[in-house]
Amino acid sequence: MCFPDRFCLFLRKKTTLLSTTLVLFVFSLQGQANPEIHEDQRVTFRIKAPNAKEVTLSASWMPWGQAAKMEKGADGTWSFTQTSLTPDLYWYHFTVDGVRTMDPENTHLMRDVGTLWNIFLLGSGQADLYRVNQVPHGSLAFRWYQSPHNEKARRMAVYTPPGYESDTRQYPVLYLLHGMGGDEEAWIELGRATQILDNLIARGTIKPMIVVMPNGNVVQEAAPGKGSSGLVKPTFQMPNTMDGNFEVSFPEIMKEIESHYRVRPGKSSRAIAGLSMGGFHSANISRFYPQTFDYMGLFSPALHVNPDVAVYQKAPEQLREQQQNGYRLYWIRVGENDFPQLLLGIREHLQQMDQLDMPYDYATTSGGHSWENWRKYLVEFLPLLFQD
Amino acid sequence: MCFPDRFCLFLRKKTTLLSTTLVLFVFSLQGQANPEIHEDQRVTFRIKAPNAKEVTLSASWMPWGQAAKMEKGADGTWSFTQTSLTPDLYWYHFTVDGVRTMDPENTHLMRDVGTLWNIFLLGSGQADLYRVNQVPHGSLAFRWYQSPHNEKARRMAVYTPPGYESDTRQYPVLYLLHGMGGDEEAWIELGRATQILDNLIARGTIKPMIVVMPNGNVVQEAAPGKGSSGLVKPTFQMPNTMDGNFEVSFPEIMKEIESHYRVRPGKSSRAIAGLSMGGFHSANISRFYPQTFDYMGLFSPALHVNPDVAVYQKAPEQLREQQQNGYRLYWIRVGENDFPQLLLGIREHLQQMDQLDMPYDYATTSGGHSWENWRKYLVEFLPLLFQD
Repeated sequence: MCFPDRFCLFLRKKTTLLSTTLVLFVFSLQGQANPEIHEDQRVTFRIKAPNAKEVTLSASWMPWGQAAKMEKGADGTWSFTQTSLTPDLYWYHFTVDGVRTMDPENTHLMRDVGTLWNIFLLGSGQADLYRVNQVPHGSLAFRWYQSPHNEKARRMAVYTPPGYESDTRQYPVLYLLHGMGGDEEAWIELGRATQILDNLIARGTIKPMIVVMPNGNVVQEAAPGKGSSGLVKPTFQMPNTMDGNFEVSFPEIMKEIESHYRVRPGKSSRAIAGLSMGGFHSANISRFYPQTFDYMGLFSPALHVNPDVAVYQKAPEQLREQQQNGYRLYWIRVGENDFPQLLLGIREHLQQMDQLDMPYDYATTSGGHSWENWRKYLVEFLPLLFQD
Repeated sequence: MCFPDRFCLFLRKKTTLLSTTLVLFVFSLQGQANPEIHEDQRVTFRIKAPNAKEVTLSASWMPWGQAAKMEKGADGTWSFTQTSLTPDLYWYHFTVDGVRTMDPENTHLMRDVGTLWNIFLLGSGQADLYRVNQVPHGSLAFRWYQSPHNEKARRMAVYTPPGYESDTRQYPVLYLLHGMGGDEEAWIELGRATQILDNLIARGTIKPMIVVMPNGNVVQEAAPGKGSSGLVKPTFQMPNTMDGNFEVSFPEIMKEIESHYRVRPGKSSRAIAGLSMGGFHSANISRFYPQTFDYMGLFSPALHVNPDVAVYQKAPEQLREQQQNGYRLYWIRVGENDFPQLLLGIREHLQQMDQLDMPYDYATTSGGHSWENWRKYLVEFLPLLFQD
């Protein structure tokens, strides 16, 4: 049993030639990377499938349900070339005769709920922020905390900025929350948060900060496969996700962080932001604990509250209290093509804030309910934090 | 653009019904997990491919190059049932009409060099050690250190045991090294090291320890995709890997750890172990710095030294110095079906040790050059460390 394919293949081919320098391999089997990104930013996708009748490409820039037909070449390799993409992180997969297929020549994937996608980075500009560049890197830790309220140990991801381990400074903290179907890995995998943070800190446009990415699904210990429920199939398994328990138990997370990290104390050193359900959580947590956060970021927030959940019924009074305590930034962004019902929820929330004379920074952008937007919102939001 | 498939599909179907409770999803789309593990430990693999002519299953328990033919059912789903597997972590993929295909119903994967495999855990016993159980969990950090010798910043993984963040104790350190084609993620992804450590610490059979997993390929900053070379295709890109530079620069790693972690000082609190090339590195590092480690673990070590590399030429004297300084454990394991040339290298190394009257604990096991063995060796080796 020998499993790294090329290694074994090599060994089996060369086994009669093996000398005492067996292990001094001086070779590189670097294949052509897939997809191929041309100098003019066109992107060519290829998959060898000589026996297939139809091969298509599905990708994050295509409207839902659409796919591009690929063309078969003489050697059985199907290909398709895409033009006119702006710099960004993109996702794709193939469908070979009806079977959803990863690109066998691209091992870089990300998982979105229960599906896998190949990824690639195109171009400079915005995409440069999503790359690992030669800049000082922060650390990323996966750690667990006890949640007595939810009766389980739970996993979180914590980014500490470059220098944190070597200096004695205290740092401000951003709590960065995922959306429905996400988990404590979503902002790292799909959001490229650690790359964005490293790169913006290196440019000097944001303050070095600790960024805490908890798991907002209180029914889960951890991301699928990372908890004791085993290698489960990730699905929307969150019957109780928006029942207030995440918000009510949020102080457990803050206590864990503030007792184990060198955190600058006080409201002016705390921010909370999230996308979709995480925007809902951010709005709720910031008013549940109205003396806690000076910075709120709501990215495409899904703000509708279930009126039957008791802890949500005090919203108007809590919002007033938040207003009275003051804050520095209440920042909301949403794509103009987002779901109508979600846009309506935001309008209602803004009306409530207007009635209370609560200041906010609100704008719509192009695009819809997508990671393309959430990465951009994070890049816009971070420089507004802790600048004093 | 909306990408979590089921979420979008759901939203698009229900969009006319959306009420103010839009986001209070109370549903679970948990599908049948794949593969299906029966109560009697048989495992059934399935993939829907109605248009396919031939579908096969390749898996880690099959001899190299072999695959099992799957059978087509009436609904176009191909299936195959495997019997008689012992409890372990296993790998597989499908091949649909010649195209290497991941299981679309299983999002749990691991990468081995340049190929991806679906994974599953079967049974209890040994496999229980590879699961995330409801036991206290250590933390896992990915962090970077400066390597002046290799002229780059480099990434490593560091496991700290449960309680490390809350107490003030000093801990012993195991440096755990990967093989050729691996990187700082190999012991985590393929070796299940964090699960093994959490579980053995919870059972009380090993001492809580810090485990450092560096990247042994000095040409790399980090695992493919985690460094500034971008989303490169992982291959054997290590022209200089066994040229001595990892060993010569190893004190940079130890300095990083000993200056940032609560490390118990001294030789009796340091161990070094590795698989294949990592066993070679462990042997070399422990004799290059002969007053540093009391515990050596060589798992299927590839011990052949390139005689042209100057730093390797002092091996006999260094080994003598290591013998004179003393140590507690020099532990070597290899599968009896490993590569003949590798077995020969071990025999030569043992002869050298015999000539110097160096004690060692050597045994062969069943199996070959495989992660199945390396996980087992780790489980056997860990309880022997720091027991005083």
